[in-house]
Amino acid sequence: MAGSVFGNHFKISTWGESHGKALGVVIDGVPAGLPLCEEDIQIFLNRRKPGQSKFTTARAEGDLVEILSGVFEGKTTGTPLSLMVKNADQHSKDYSNIMDKFRPGHADFGFFEKYGFRDYRGGGRSSGRETIGRVAAGAVASKILGEMGISLCAYTKSVGPVEISTFDKAEISQNDLYMPDAKAAQKARAYLDECISNQDSAGGVVECVISGVPAGVGEPVFEKLDAKLAQGILSIGAVKGFEIGDGFLASKSKGSENNDAFVSKDGKITKKTNHSGGVLGGISDGSDIVFRAAFKPTPSISQPQETVNEKGENLSIEIHGRHDPIIVPRAVVVVESMAAVVLLDEMIENMSSQLSFLKEFYS
Amino acid sequence: MAGSVFGNHFKISTWGESHGKALGVVIDGVPAGLPLCEEDIQIFLNRRKPGQSKFTTARAEGDLVEILSGVFEGKTTGTPLSLMVKNADQHSKDYSNIMDKFRPGHADFGFFEKYGFRDYRGGGRSSGRETIGRVAAGAVASKILGEMGISLCAYTKSVGPVEISTFDKAEISQNDLYMPDAKAAQKARAYLDECISNQDSAGGVVECVISGVPAGVGEPVFEKLDAKLAQGILSIGAVKGFEIGDGFLASKSKGSENNDAFVSKDGKITKKTNHSGGVLGGISDGSDIVFRAAFKPTPSISQPQETVNEKGENLSIEIHGRHDPIIVPRAVVVVESMAAVVLLDEMIENMSSQLSFLKEFYS
Amino acid sequence: MAGSVFGNHFKISTWGESHGKALGVVIDGVPAGLPLCEEDIQIFLNRRKPGQSKFTTARAEGDLVEILSGVFEGKTTGTPLSLMVKNADQHSKDYSNIMDKFRPGHADFGFFEKYGFRDYRGGGRSSGRETIGRVAAGAVASKILGEMGISLCAYTKSVGPVEISTFDKAEISQNDLYMPDAKAAQKARAYLDECISNQDSAGGVVECVISGVPAGVGEPVFEKLDAKLAQGILSIGAVKGFEIGDGFLASKSKGSENNDAFVSKDGKITKKTNHSGGVLGGISDGSDIVFRAAFKPTPSISQPQETVNEKGENLSIEIHGRHDPIIVPRAVVVVESMAAVVLLDEMIENMSSQLSFLKEFYS
Amino acid sequence: MAGSVFGNHFKISTWGESHGKALGVVIDGVPAGLPLCEEDIQIFLNRRKPGQSKFTTARAEGDLVEILSGVFEGKTTGTPLSLMVKNADQHSKDYSNIMDKFRPGHADFGFFEKYGFRDYRGGGRSSGRETIGRVAAGAVASKILGEMGISLCAYTKSVGPVEISTFDKAEISQNDLYMPDAKAAQKARAYLDECISNQDSAGGVVECVISGVPAGVGEPVFEKLDAKLAQGILSIGAVKGFEIGDGFLASKSKGSENNDAFVSKDGKITKKTNHSGGVLGGISDGSDIVFRAAFKPTPSISQPQETVNEKGENLSIEIHGRHDPIIVPRAVVVVESMAAVVLLDEMIENMSSQLSFLKEFYS
Repeated sequence: MAGSVFGNHFKISTWGESHGKALGVVIDGVPAGLPLCEEDIQIFLNRRKPGQSKFTTARAEGDLVEILSGVFEGKTTGTPLSLMVKNADQHSKDYSNIMDKFRPGHADFGFFEKYGFRDYRGGGRSSGRETIGRVAAGAVASKILGEMGISLCAYTKSVGPVEISTFDKAEISQNDLYMPDAKAAQKARAYLDECISNQDSAGGVVECVISGVPAGVGEPVFEKLDAKLAQGILSIGAVKGFEIGDGFLASKSKGSENNDAFVSKDGKITKKTNHSGGVLGGISDGSDIVFRAAFKPTPSISQPQETVNEKGENLSIEIHGRHDPIIVPRAVVVVESMAAVVLLDEMIENMSSQLSFLKEFYS
Repeated sequence: MAGSVFGNHFKISTWGESHGKALGVVIDGVPAGLPLCEEDIQIFLNRRKPGQSKFTTARAEGDLVEILSGVFEGKTTGTPLSLMVKNADQHSKDYSNIMDKFRPGHADFGFFEKYGFRDYRGGGRSSGRETIGRVAAGAVASKILGEMGISLCAYTKSVGPVEISTFDKAEISQNDLYMPDAKAAQKARAYLDECISNQDSAGGVVECVISGVPAGVGEPVFEKLDAKLAQGILSIGAVKGFEIGDGFLASKSKGSENNDAFVSKDGKITKKTNHSGGVLGGISDGSDIVFRAAFKPTPSISQPQETVNEKGENLSIEIHGRHDPIIVPRAVVVVESMAAVVLLDEMIENMSSQLSFLKEFYS
Repeated sequence: MAGSVFGNHFKISTWGESHGKALGVVIDGVPAGLPLCEEDIQIFLNRRKPGQSKFTTARAEGDLVEILSGVFEGKTTGTPLSLMVKNADQHSKDYSNIMDKFRPGHADFGFFEKYGFRDYRGGGRSSGRETIGRVAAGAVASKILGEMGISLCAYTKSVGPVEISTFDKAEISQNDLYMPDAKAAQKARAYLDECISNQDSAGGVVECVISGVPAGVGEPVFEKLDAKLAQGILSIGAVKGFEIGDGFLASKSKGSENNDAFVSKDGKITKKTNHSGGVLGGISDGSDIVFRAAFKPTPSISQPQETVNEKGENLSIEIHGRHDPIIVPRAVVVVESMAAVVLLDEMIENMSSQLSFLKEFYS
Repeated sequence: MAGSVFGNHFKISTWGESHGKALGVVIDGVPAGLPLCEEDIQIFLNRRKPGQSKFTTARAEGDLVEILSGVFEGKTTGTPLSLMVKNADQHSKDYSNIMDKFRPGHADFGFFEKYGFRDYRGGGRSSGRETIGRVAAGAVASKILGEMGISLCAYTKSVGPVEISTFDKAEISQNDLYMPDAKAAQKARAYLDECISNQDSAGGVVECVISGVPAGVGEPVFEKLDAKLAQGILSIGAVKGFEIGDGFLASKSKGSENNDAFVSKDGKITKKTNHSGGVLGGISDGSDIVFRAAFKPTPSISQPQETVNEKGENLSIEIHGRHDPIIVPRAVVVVESMAAVVLLDEMIENMSSQLSFLKEFYS
C-alpha cells in the first residue's frame, strides 16, 4: 500500500519518474470486449503534453503511448492492460545545481526524510510527469463510461484571481488555457504574462462536470462517491482543495436554500436545482456531478528563495529550467482522468448492491 | 468494498443504523500493549452526544460504549477491538409520516435507487448516528498518536456567515458551539436562534490542527496524506468541501507568496510560514497539519418543501421531530476522529519505507 | 491488514476471543433484499456447537446469534450486517496452571513473540471459538448462493487412518462424525475411543463438494478460485494441507490420465471426468468443485509433554479441561462456510468481467 | 481486484501474455535503499528460462529484464519498480489449428465463458510465461529477505512416482531437474523419456524450505502465514495441492506424535521436531518453514484427445509445438519466488504489531 495503486475494481498501478527510462500504468480489471487502440489513449495524453503554448514547459517530448498487453485483435481481453510512455528528452544537467537543496513548495524535504535519499532530477516520482499514468488510465475509463452514455468535461474555472463569467463549452478547446470564456482567457493571459515577467507563477481552479450518471452510484459511509473523488483529486500534485456542488459556499447557506427539491415529470425524478453537485449522502442523485479542484501556484520559480540543503545549511536557491508558470491548463485532463477512474470504479462496485442483480446475472 | 471498511493497517469496519439495536466498530490492526478502557472511548463519544444544548437534538441517549473484545488485563492484545453502543431511545413513530417520501438534501432517493428499498426510520445507515463507530475508532487512534507526542485539535471555525476572528484554545470547550472565539460564538448563537425561529438550519466550517507529526509521513501518488484526509473527511455526512493549508485561497496566490521558505536552526529544519498546511507533495513537512471541512446546513427542516414519493408523485413534506439546526458543533469530534484514523494509518505504513528500518527491526 | 478481514466484495471482519464477552462478525457487502433471520444463521452455528457427542467438548454454551444491524423488515438492507454471539460459559480457572507455559502444537509461543504478551485463557483469538464469526458469515453466503442454485456439502472423509469407502449423503447428518459412510464412522469411533483412553488425539480430512457453479468464475493469476479457497481453508486453525480435484495424486499421474475430455451434449459443454475438481487455470469449468482439507490432531492432550515457559525454563505440561479429542466433525461446517464466503466473493467479482455486462446493467 | 495484483505491502501487479509484446511486473512498496541491478533479477529469470534441457521447451528466448523505474544511482528509491521482459520469439502460427478448440486440462473454456472470447495463441494470460512477473518480483523480495538473513531453497521432490530419498543441497543445481538426489534424478529422467516417447507428460512435487525466519511472523485468522503461502502457491498454474509441515500425513497422526516439544537452550527457544513446518496457528515458530506444492502433468500432449470447439461440436485435438513434458523443474524458482513475496509481505505487516515498536520508530 505504498501509494501507487488506486481503485478496487478498475485498479491502476502507475510507475515511473520524470528522468527515468519510461513511465506507465498497469490497469487490472478492464472489462473484456472494449475496442481499444493507442490512438484512444494518445488523444488524452496530447491534452497534457508540454510545449503547447508559452505557458507550458518547452520540453518537446512526443509522449507516445504503447499498449504492451491486454489487447487482442483490437479488443481488451479482461487481463491487465500495460501502457508505457518512454522518456525521450532528459536534460538531467539542468537540475544538478539544486541537487542537495530542498526546493520550497516541493516534496523534496519530505522525500528525503521518508526515504533517506531522493532522485534530485526534477522531482523523480513527485514530478508532474507522474500524471502520465493517470491520464492513460483515465482515457480507458472515459471510453468505457462513454459506452454507457456518461461524459466528463473539465475546464479551467479560474487563473489566479481571474474567473470565468460565461460558459461556452466549444470555447474550452479553442484557447490554450482551456477556459470556457474567451474574454476571461484573455485577461488570464495578461495576468500570466505579468507573472512570467516577475519570475513568478500562478494557481487556479479546475471544474469538472460529469453528465449521464444514474442515481444510486457510490457506497455509503467511507466509499462515498464524493469522498473517493476527493481522494482522487487531492492525490494530484499541487491540489490544495476540493469541493462538490456549492462546496464551501454551502457552509454559509441555509437549509431552505441549499436543499434541492425533487420533482417528478413523465415518470422521471429529477431535482429543481443542483446545490448538491449530484451527490447526496455519498450516492449519485441523477443530476450532473459538479466538483472543483484548487491548484496552488507552480512552486518552481526563478526568483531567489531562502532554503536549506541536506547538510542543514541555510542558503538561497534559484530554480531555472523549463517550468510552467501555471500548471492548471495541463492539469485539466488530469482532473478529468482521475474523475473517470473513480466513477468507473464505483459503478462496477454498484453492480452487486441488490440480490436480484446477482440472481439475474447468474440465471 | 461496499464502503463501511476504512484503512489499510488500522482498519475500521463500522456498522449500525439510527434505529437498529446497536451501532459499533471493529478495529483490526490495533497494536498490542496500549492501555485501554471504556472511559478512554467514552470521553470522545460524549463530545458527539446529542442533547447538550438547544442547538443539538434532544435525544437523551447515554451512548455508552462497551469493549467486547481485543483487551486483556487492561491492554490491547493486537487482535480485533470490537466496540458497541446500544440504541436506547428509538422513537420510530416520529418518522412514519415521511416513510415513502424522499427528503430533500438527504440520501433517501439514492438509497432507494441503489438498494430497491430503504430503512425509512431516520436515515438508517445514512443517519448521523453512523459516526459513533468513527468516533469510537478515533478515540483509540488518538490515544495511540498521543503516545507518540501527536495531538489533534478541531473546532468550529464558522457558523453560517459568522467566522472566528481570534483563537483561544481554552475557549473551545467552554462554549456549546466549540468555537475558539467567545464573541464569535455569541454572534453565531444569535444567527442560529434566527434560523430556528424561521424553521431553517445552518452550516459551517470545522478546522483541525494536528501537531507533532514528523516529516516524511504520507505516501506519494494516490495515498498522499492530504488525499486520504480528504477521503476521510468527505466521507462524513454533510461535508461538501475540504482544503488543506491555504486551500482555495492558494489558487489566487503567487508562487513567491505561497512557497514556504525552509530554515535551519539548531540542527532542525522548519518552515518560516505554513501555507502548505503541513503537507508538501502528499508527505508531511514537519509543520502543523491544518485543514478545513465545509458542512452544509442540516437538510431536515420543518418548513414545507417540495418533493416526490416512491410512486413518483409530486407532493409536499414537513420534517418534524428532533433535529439539530446545525450539526457542526457535534461534527467537530467526528472530524478530529477521522483525521486521527487517517494519520495513524499512514504512520504505520511509513514504517517500512526504508530497507534500513526493516533490517533494524529484524536484527 | 492485521488479518481478521477477508474478502473483496463480501467482506467479513471477525472478532472475539474464547474467554471474552462475545464473538462476532461484521459483513460489509451483503446484497440488499435477502430475506434473513437469526434462525438462518443459528442452523449453521448449531452444526459447530460443542457438547454434541463424547468426541466434542462439554462446554454447554448456547451460542445464540443476534443480528445487530443490516436487516430491516426481514430483509438485508445492503449495509453492514453485524452478528454477535455472547460467551456464556467461561471457566477461566481451567487454564490458570498453564498461563505462562507454551503449549506444544499451539500458537502460544508465536503470539507471545509477536505481541509481547498473550491472552492465556484457552487461546484467546487463536481458539477454535474464533470460527463462530466465519460460520455466521458462511450461513449468510450459503443462503445467497442457494438463491442462485448453488449448494455446498462438506463431510468427514477420514478420521486418523480410517477413510470412507462408500458415499451416502443422507448418512452425513446421521452420525456424530459427519461421515457419509456408517461403517467407516463406526471404525472411526473405535479409533477415537482408543485415542481418548490413551489421553491422545486424532486428526482427519474434510472434503467439500460445491454443485451448481457455472463456468467462468474465478480470476486469473493471483485470485484464482482454488488459490482463494486454499487461503480460506488454510486460514482455519489446525489445517495443514489443501488439495483440489486429484490434488497430490495428480502429481503422480500422466497428462493423458489427468486431462478431462470436454464433451458437448444438447448444447451443453461438460467434462467426461473431473480430475480437475471443477477448476482449470483458476477458473470454474462447470463441474462440481471438489476439495479437501487436512486437519492435524488436536494439540491439547492430557499426556505430559515437554515444553518451555515464558522465562525460558524447560518443564513439563499437562493440559486438562474440556478438549475435543478430534476437531474434524465440528470443523466440517467451518470448511463449508469458508468455501461459501470465497465462492460468493469471486462470483460478485465476475459480474464485471465483460463490458457488455456493464452496458446491460446500466442500460 | 481482477486478480493480477498481490500483496498488501510489497504489492505486485503483473501483466503480459505469452504472445504479446512483453511481460512484466510493477512492484509498489519496495523499501528504499536496496542496491539493485538487472543482474540480480536476471539470475532468477534464468532459472525459469526455457530451452535448458530436453525436458523443457525449445523456445530460445533470452528473457532479458529491463528496470524501467524505481532505481536511482543503483539503489531502490521507495517508489514503484517497473520490470519488463520483451517477448522475442513469437511463433503464433503453431497455435492456429487449435484456435477455436478448448484444450483439455487448460483454462481455455473458462476464459471463453468468462470473457466471451480469448487469446488463443498459447494461452495468453494463462500461459506459463505469466510467471515471469512473479519471478522478477521474487528476485527482489529474496534479495531483501537475504539482507535480513533469510534464505529460501526450493527443489523438485518428486517427478511422477519417482521421489527423492536423499538430500544433497549442492546437487540441486547440478541436474536439469533440480533434484537434490542424483540417483532419483536419473530415474526421473528415465520416467520422463518414457512419457515423451508415449506423447505423454508428467507432474511432480516441489518442496521449499525457508530458513532464518524469526518467530512471530504471520497474522492470526485470515492472513495466517501458511494461508497466504497457500494462496500464493495455488495461484501458480498447474498446482493442485499445498501442504505445510507434515501436511496430509498429519491427519493420520496422533497429537502425541504431531506436537513438537519446545526446548530452551542457551536462552533460545526451539522445537525438538518440526512436524508443524515452522508455522503454528498461522504464525512462524522459529523453525524452518517447510511446504510442498503438487503440480499436475503438463496438459499439452500431442496424443489425440476428445474435446469440443467454440461452436459446441465434439471433435479431436492434437497439440503439437514446443511444450515441456513436465513443468516442475522450471516451476521450482516460481515456487521459491512466490514464497519470498508472501513472506516479505507478512514480515512488513508484523512491524506494527506492538505499540512499543511504533513508539520506538517515531521517537
